[in-house]
Amino acid sequence: MKEFEKLKQFIDKHSGFVLVGHKNADGDCIGTMSAFGIILEKLGKSAVFIVADPVPHNYFFLKKVKDFKVVNTFDCKQSPVILFECGNMERSGINLENYGERANFDHHPDNKFYAELNIVNPEASSVGEMAAIFFREYFENLIDSDVANSLYTAIHTDTGGFAYSNVKKSTFEVASYLMSKGLDNQLVCNEVYGNNKIEKTRLLGYYLENLEVKKMKNFNLCYGVLALKDLERFNCTSRDTENFANYPRGIMGVDVGVFFLEVEQGVFKVSLRSKGKVIVNKVAANLGGGGHKFAAGCTVKGEWPRVLDTVLKEFEKDE
Amino acid sequence: MKEFEKLKQFIDKHSGFVLVGHKNADGDCIGTMSAFGIILEKLGKSAVFIVADPVPHNYFFLKKVKDFKVVNTFDCKQSPVILFECGNMERSGINLENYGERANFDHHPDNKFYAELNIVNPEASSVGEMAAIFFREYFENLIDSDVANSLYTAIHTDTGGFAYSNVKKSTFEVASYLMSKGLDNQLVCNEVYGNNKIEKTRLLGYYLENLEVKKMKNFNLCYGVLALKDLERFNCTSRDTENFANYPRGIMGVDVGVFFLEVEQGVFKVSLRSKGKVIVNKVAANLGGGGHKFAAGCTVKGEWPRVLDTVLKEFEKDE
Repeated sequence: MKEFEKLKQFIDKHSGFVLVGHKNADGDCIGTMSAFGIILEKLGKSAVFIVADPVPHNYFFLKKVKDFKVVNTFDCKQSPVILFECGNMERSGINLENYGERANFDHHPDNKFYAELNIVNPEASSVGEMAAIFFREYFENLIDSDVANSLYTAIHTDTGGFAYSNVKKSTFEVASYLMSKGLDNQLVCNEVYGNNKIEKTRLLGYYLENLEVKKMKNFNLCYGVLALKDLERFNCTSRDTENFANYPRGIMGVDVGVFFLEVEQGVFKVSLRSKGKVIVNKVAANLGGGGHKFAAGCTVKGEWPRVLDTVLKEFEKDE
Repeated sequence: MKEFEKLKQFIDKHSGFVLVGHKNADGDCIGTMSAFGIILEKLGKSAVFIVADPVPHNYFFLKKVKDFKVVNTFDCKQSPVILFECGNMERSGINLENYGERANFDHHPDNKFYAELNIVNPEASSVGEMAAIFFREYFENLIDSDVANSLYTAIHTDTGGFAYSNVKKSTFEVASYLMSKGLDNQLVCNEVYGNNKIEKTRLLGYYLENLEVKKMKNFNLCYGVLALKDLERFNCTSRDTENFANYPRGIMGVDVGVFFLEVEQGVFKVSLRSKGKVIVNKVAANLGGGGHKFAAGCTVKGEWPRVLDTVLKEFEKDE
């Protein structure tokens, strides 16, 4: 925890900070930035929050989120910067100018340790969990229900509701600690998960209704597809399909799930998800993409259902 | 914890048990029965597991579930019985004959304390949490990963993935403890939530695609409906609609969600769910039903969309 001590000194030393999220910032990144913002304010310090993309509306309930600025370029005027979940500087999606000392706060294993201070723990479920442990150690008295709600948002979203393998004993211990600090877990989950756009919900419905299961040589595959005209019909954009790739894998008896999303006319983003029996990043690589063993992706050009054929053939080759 | 001491004595005293679940047993009930079964076996005692309805397939991975018997009537031959989440004897849905001493293990506030030994804690998130605390106190060394997975199934399903207001500090503490006993939280969640029937998923899709939002005088209502012919078309039964009632409430800007399910020709089960602004059990009561302030239900006879009109009018009356 030597890094935590250094982070404490980093915070003590400065009076104003620039907090930077990653491209398409998620619940972990946004919740943790919000929590840092509240703590810094209580310390009498100022913070500017910047992200490259608009914050999804389901995080608007968090205290600091209304102050988040969406920017392409930012002049830091020599202020110290804390980057959240940015494995490298480009990951922020922001052209940062004139930044001062940088703290790099992350839990991803591919982090490049590029900053003056690198606090990177790939064992942590989330940066929310890291922040909770840091705050508990140094700012115990400043943790209020807003901080707790922000950090629970981070932890709950990044662990899929305590469902993923990144959950450790410490993750539950931190959640238990946050309960003692006024966490309203129901409020958080209602806001984050119970606030769905009707258009997106109907699009999801159409997508689920039309899922297809395909028997391959040695395994079962389930796929779903959304064409540009479907997005248009439901008054949605590709940003409304976040998480859709996980549904086909969730079908009983299915080993691999595939989500085809037409991102431009005749260009399909293909997301591959495996339950663990079939390795999918080889297939993705053969089609010019990449990724992890059990979660990978690629882009395939062509018209439907030729694109489907291309991907299915690649799977058969690979078996 | 006097009751826990008595339960320990109850278990010590007998060598064979009948474990009884409630009608349409859920993850909490099934997981906890499974955990008790494993512990009893390790103690060299025998257990019979009985339920009134088939166990949903997504719980088949739990160690003891293959031994569960589905019965209407059961001759206990004077064996001691442990009833799980049965507020009264009828709640089991089983005609129990010749039962011996009864232990009543529940966390619902409406429990009737009808048994020789009543272990009822309405503060507990789940009977899974109660069981974990009991086992930790008396059978610490017998808790293995199968017990931990069974109890996590119970806790995770009954708290909506640590999302509901029944979650306490102790709930997370118990989960943390189960991690130290070999809990595989990812396995549990993959099995419980990632094992959906394709037919049910398509039915859910159709339901979501056709959700409607209705502006009432002082609030917004979202409803979905499934007719008998829809269930038939998707090759599903009403049992495949478990949890469907929660989706309409999950829409942004909506205060009340309503799910209409045709259970017989011209007979609709109506499930009402509120986000907290509108009290719904009064509406349900006016239509001959009942329930909690924010989750209630009733049955309305008639043809669609007359049934919808009836319910909407009742809401307008109530405003």
